[in-house]
Amino acid sequence: MEWCASRCCYFRDPRMTSSSQKHQFTIVVVVLQAIFMILFGLFAKYDENTMPNGSDDLSSMSSKYPMFQDTHVMIFIGFGFLMTFLKRYGFSAVSINMLLACFTIEWGMIVRGVLSEEFHTNGRFIIGIDQLLTADFAAAVVLITMGAMLGKLTPIQYLIMTLIETPIAIFIEHHVVHTFHVNDIGGSIVVHTFGAYFGLACSKTFGNKRQRDHENEGSIYHSDIYAMIGAIFLWVFWPSFNAVMAEPADARQRAVCNTFLSLCACTITTFLASQATDHHKKFDMVHIANSTLAGGVAIGTIANVVLHPLHALLIGVIAGLLSVVGYKYITPLLTSKLGIHDTCGVNNLHGMPGVLAGLLSAILVMVYDPLDYGKSLNLIYPAMRSESNADGISASSQALNQLIGLALVLVSSLTSGLLTGLLLKLDMLNQVRENEFYADGDYFETPSDYDFTTQVISRIDHIEISEHTHLTHDEIKMVDDVPSDRSRS
Amino acid sequence: MEWCASRCCYFRDPRMTSSSQKHQFTIVVVVLQAIFMILFGLFAKYDENTMPNGSDDLSSMSSKYPMFQDTHVMIFIGFGFLMTFLKRYGFSAVSINMLLACFTIEWGMIVRGVLSEEFHTNGRFIIGIDQLLTADFAAAVVLITMGAMLGKLTPIQYLIMTLIETPIAIFIEHHVVHTFHVNDIGGSIVVHTFGAYFGLACSKTFGNKRQRDHENEGSIYHSDIYAMIGAIFLWVFWPSFNAVMAEPADARQRAVCNTFLSLCACTITTFLASQATDHHKKFDMVHIANSTLAGGVAIGTIANVVLHPLHALLIGVIAGLLSVVGYKYITPLLTSKLGIHDTCGVNNLHGMPGVLAGLLSAILVMVYDPLDYGKSLNLIYPAMRSESNADGISASSQALNQLIGLALVLVSSLTSGLLTGLLLKLDMLNQVRENEFYADGDYFETPSDYDFTTQVISRIDHIEISEHTHLTHDEIKMVDDVPSDRSRS
Amino acid sequence: MEWCASRCCYFRDPRMTSSSQKHQFTIVVVVLQAIFMILFGLFAKYDENTMPNGSDDLSSMSSKYPMFQDTHVMIFIGFGFLMTFLKRYGFSAVSINMLLACFTIEWGMIVRGVLSEEFHTNGRFIIGIDQLLTADFAAAVVLITMGAMLGKLTPIQYLIMTLIETPIAIFIEHHVVHTFHVNDIGGSIVVHTFGAYFGLACSKTFGNKRQRDHENEGSIYHSDIYAMIGAIFLWVFWPSFNAVMAEPADARQRAVCNTFLSLCACTITTFLASQATDHHKKFDMVHIANSTLAGGVAIGTIANVVLHPLHALLIGVIAGLLSVVGYKYITPLLTSKLGIHDTCGVNNLHGMPGVLAGLLSAILVMVYDPLDYGKSLNLIYPAMRSESNADGISASSQALNQLIGLALVLVSSLTSGLLTGLLLKLDMLNQVRENEFYADGDYFETPSDYDFTTQVISRIDHIEISEHTHLTHDEIKMVDDVPSDRSRS
Repeated sequence: MEWCASRCCYFRDPRMTSSSQKHQFTIVVVVLQAIFMILFGLFAKYDENTMPNGSDDLSSMSSKYPMFQDTHVMIFIGFGFLMTFLKRYGFSAVSINMLLACFTIEWGMIVRGVLSEEFHTNGRFIIGIDQLLTADFAAAVVLITMGAMLGKLTPIQYLIMTLIETPIAIFIEHHVVHTFHVNDIGGSIVVHTFGAYFGLACSKTFGNKRQRDHENEGSIYHSDIYAMIGAIFLWVFWPSFNAVMAEPADARQRAVCNTFLSLCACTITTFLASQATDHHKKFDMVHIANSTLAGGVAIGTIANVVLHPLHALLIGVIAGLLSVVGYKYITPLLTSKLGIHDTCGVNNLHGMPGVLAGLLSAILVMVYDPLDYGKSLNLIYPAMRSESNADGISASSQALNQLIGLALVLVSSLTSGLLTGLLLKLDMLNQVRENEFYADGDYFETPSDYDFTTQVISRIDHIEISEHTHLTHDEIKMVDDVPSDRSRS
Repeated sequence: MEWCASRCCYFRDPRMTSSSQKHQFTIVVVVLQAIFMILFGLFAKYDENTMPNGSDDLSSMSSKYPMFQDTHVMIFIGFGFLMTFLKRYGFSAVSINMLLACFTIEWGMIVRGVLSEEFHTNGRFIIGIDQLLTADFAAAVVLITMGAMLGKLTPIQYLIMTLIETPIAIFIEHHVVHTFHVNDIGGSIVVHTFGAYFGLACSKTFGNKRQRDHENEGSIYHSDIYAMIGAIFLWVFWPSFNAVMAEPADARQRAVCNTFLSLCACTITTFLASQATDHHKKFDMVHIANSTLAGGVAIGTIANVVLHPLHALLIGVIAGLLSVVGYKYITPLLTSKLGIHDTCGVNNLHGMPGVLAGLLSAILVMVYDPLDYGKSLNLIYPAMRSESNADGISASSQALNQLIGLALVLVSSLTSGLLTGLLLKLDMLNQVRENEFYADGDYFETPSDYDFTTQVISRIDHIEISEHTHLTHDEIKMVDDVPSDRSRS
Repeated sequence: MEWCASRCCYFRDPRMTSSSQKHQFTIVVVVLQAIFMILFGLFAKYDENTMPNGSDDLSSMSSKYPMFQDTHVMIFIGFGFLMTFLKRYGFSAVSINMLLACFTIEWGMIVRGVLSEEFHTNGRFIIGIDQLLTADFAAAVVLITMGAMLGKLTPIQYLIMTLIETPIAIFIEHHVVHTFHVNDIGGSIVVHTFGAYFGLACSKTFGNKRQRDHENEGSIYHSDIYAMIGAIFLWVFWPSFNAVMAEPADARQRAVCNTFLSLCACTITTFLASQATDHHKKFDMVHIANSTLAGGVAIGTIANVVLHPLHALLIGVIAGLLSVVGYKYITPLLTSKLGIHDTCGVNNLHGMPGVLAGLLSAILVMVYDPLDYGKSLNLIYPAMRSESNADGISASSQALNQLIGLALVLVSSLTSGLLTGLLLKLDMLNQVRENEFYADGDYFETPSDYDFTTQVISRIDHIEISEHTHLTHDEIKMVDDVPSDRSRS
């Protein structure tokens, strides 16, 4: 009976029958897209390098474009496929990921544009390769949050969440970078930490008991392999993500090398920790697909700072340990004790490694001698005292600023995530039906094998085996009596 | 019985037993590859930058190579996986895609070489990075046509189709670009429109009733996700596709930005339209995987022309609407009224958005002031009047040329596609068996789960559920009596 | 009964119960990672371009970074997914691939560093973009060997194998390149040939009867498509792999063009040969996914040497033929006659085409006139006589050197592989249980559908069909009596 009910279209649910709820998505998207376009029409213009100018300066394109494309692949393939690990939520993962990314790109360009100097001077904000890139960064924030909420929101709720989170994240980033002059080259503080804790706070207010231990919340063999497509593309291109904004060229190469080494050490550590902490001494695909990436987050803020290969390796090792321990022990605690359910474990991949990156950034500014950076010191720490900036702040002030930046991100993300969660729970918004958490069926036209492939597949084992041993009527009955040691842990 | 028959090898079919038909593929490929190699031996040489010349000019490689590789990924991963959406045709989609692309690359290099100035002057055509790139473009034409014919041709038929289409497409492109001086930077007219309408015309002559509403013509849950791998790689790298041929650097950056914005707006519009036009207010994966890309096609011809971000967004919105409406209403009409079956819906992804691009290119040449392009005007419109080209044509003449180019492509693709279709139907060529449309089994060695995975999987639901509720003999019979509301729309 | 047994955790096996075996992986990885980090701490430093130096020289990054990233994708996505073709070994393929690659990157950097001039002069080895790249190359060697041993080793055995193979491969490569001045730009000799024959020799000592014709050693429909993700990314980015080390710019472009053409010709030949040699005239996905790549190996050593497009095409054709013939006739012979089991057929994809590349490199140095290379001769053959190197060796000496290099690689890889295989068989190391060859279950936490999806799926066909025709008790019995022509070859 319950089975049958779960197949019905969700508009049969009386709560869902009102016309406004049925057309909610349509109305909101039409209105928002229209507003965005009006704002683009009024205030956006292409930057000089994009407009006909007679110059043939290829440097910006040839130096940044390949790294921009790597980042672009991370946002759409990387995040999208990493979230396909749920057995019944693959369509949503990869599609809603695409929708929210595009939505954030447009909205983020507007918000960032309005905060730009160009806008304050000329009343126009500019769009060029750099803006496409920072728009992808803004999308990353939202997609990390999506990871915490995965399977628990309707499309309209995801969209409202994005609408609220994007301007807050960009506003906070603006002040972290421009007011406190924080160095966060790979965005571990302003992207990863913000996205993760916004999502966790949102999940807190939003959680309910039915979401936890839901039968849909798990993977099947093929969905775990899909997730690896996303994971490996994130892994491979993470050096580009951390390095693309770094200046000058030496800092960019350093960011690439540091991220590369940190990821390698983190990956080896993840395999080590995953097996060592497992009761059966087996690897867990959740760790392989997620914790291996923590090394990219943990080195993110300081990818342009670290000057010794060993330090990059050490950071990777710590990140891998922290992330596996997080998945193994902290995530269950968050769910059971604090009622915070974290579908993708973003706390372990983005949250804690992001905080680690923030803390390390404060420590390293004290540990390394500013003179080591020579003339490029102010390209890393714009406000620090140097030959060319005699009025700059001291190393300890910079360290303090790094910590203030981290604290600001933590406080703002938790607060705004909490309030957003409360808003998303409002009855006027479409809500996920309880039986249909982590499932595509209510939002996507699904092919005829959907229920079979994603839900029932393991149960058939019983019949199959009996058939194999010359199925008879009596045997069919017998099959059901097979003791429970047949089922797998 | 029919079931059994469909499993037999297709050479059991009496029509297929002749030795010439059995060895058709072998003979044709050996002969053609031999001819291609003779022509390469006689006429091909590497260009100067590829030959030892003592220079160390990296500009061509560093500026174009990354965009070339993005395009290369689009051709082989993008098109290949986008067509894996059919449940029983994944091997063919990704493999035949690879075969036809390689075949077109060789054949296209020869055809384009013979039409080149270098060949007329020195009797040799040259091969370099630029030629690898345009060969990939030629492959795109054929792969779009393949999308319309997907699942309805045998390998030898696909190959003959490619053999005919490639020189016609390149010949027409040559005259559109060199005789009529049409600006078609992203190839929406000469690549997308040509490929789509050649395919539709081919499908018209070729169609038969059995192809339509065939039980194999549908997806399964996993095949829809495979298709998204292709779709997203196309989506992510489309800015490179539209920009790689643009000169100078500012036009290239503009092409990137315009394509990026158009795709974002198109994607949001696709989600909007897909849900709004659906009876159950659900998204359709066919739209998500295909219509989201229409924004790349619609801006293609004019990616280097558009000077305002808003215009790019508007074009994306129109393309998304057009494409979803096409899938929803026009494709069924084409099939039922005109007998034109379009497996991948290339009319909605490439055809109509390509025509839209052509029309927009004529409009925009009138709307924008030629002076806005300054010195780079003639790099966009080589024949237009400018300071350095006093004898050039007017803006309205250029607009007319754009329309002539579009018309030429439409007429030539429809005519040649129609004739090619008639040729492919000849009895002497191997034909797909009626029961085996959209199926790998006749052409690929398939693993033991092929029938189960791709065909039968949904039916087993019945047994499975009864087993779940303590399967007994009586219940098995009962299962079959469950009313039809159990089955999914 | 056996079925039940195979599901039990492998530590239930009495041979596996000792604590040292249970913690083997943990202990070895901790010790090795600690040693690596100590060595990095003592001896590694970043190169000048990576350290703050005030310069803004983008050339190294802009020219090499995109090709480095292409190579990086090949190592992690390409090799990883190519090996997912086994139905029950997808988790291992993609994960262990990642683990071994990261392990080799760290270990390879140390070994190569210790052999570097910088280390001999200053006691430090340097790390920069070039070293990340050559570390990826070192990983390729190990991953090719992994292909031969796929499914037959436990994680700790893979790791010990890597630990031994990496320094030998790098040491041999060092002498091939620096002592014998061999040109091997794409690494076909020192990477592909070494990796393949090390693996085959290892497999020889290691093989046992149960590995051959194991029911797990095969694909399912979806796993063949996964493998194509890896295959196509390898195919698309192979020009970058062969070209990235080539100097000057013209040689790099030549390497790209030659590899591109060779791959196209090889792909067409693979389809041709696969169908022509098949009893049912069907394509075989094993050939499509592997032999199409042989053209990249066969041209690897001489990608910067070949000066005529036709020669590149010819090499591709020969490689494709050789590889398909290898899969069809040589691999079965190796298994049955020599007892060498080769899971991925690396002999056909890397081994024989690598030897072909080596032989061709000796032939072409005689065939081409050294004067054709002008001033860049010594960038290809550093030891050859030229205007600027009057004391250089002759073309025939260079040809001899190429053969010596090839022979050295063959002898060293076979010997060291054999010895490594003997070591890996030691009882003190965890061994794969006989029933669990080519299976994830002993090493990875697997989802509940693991057995069903990967093993049982085809058998259920029987019930399914009977259900479809109104399943009754009698019919169920009947199903089992259906004669064997129902089963597929």
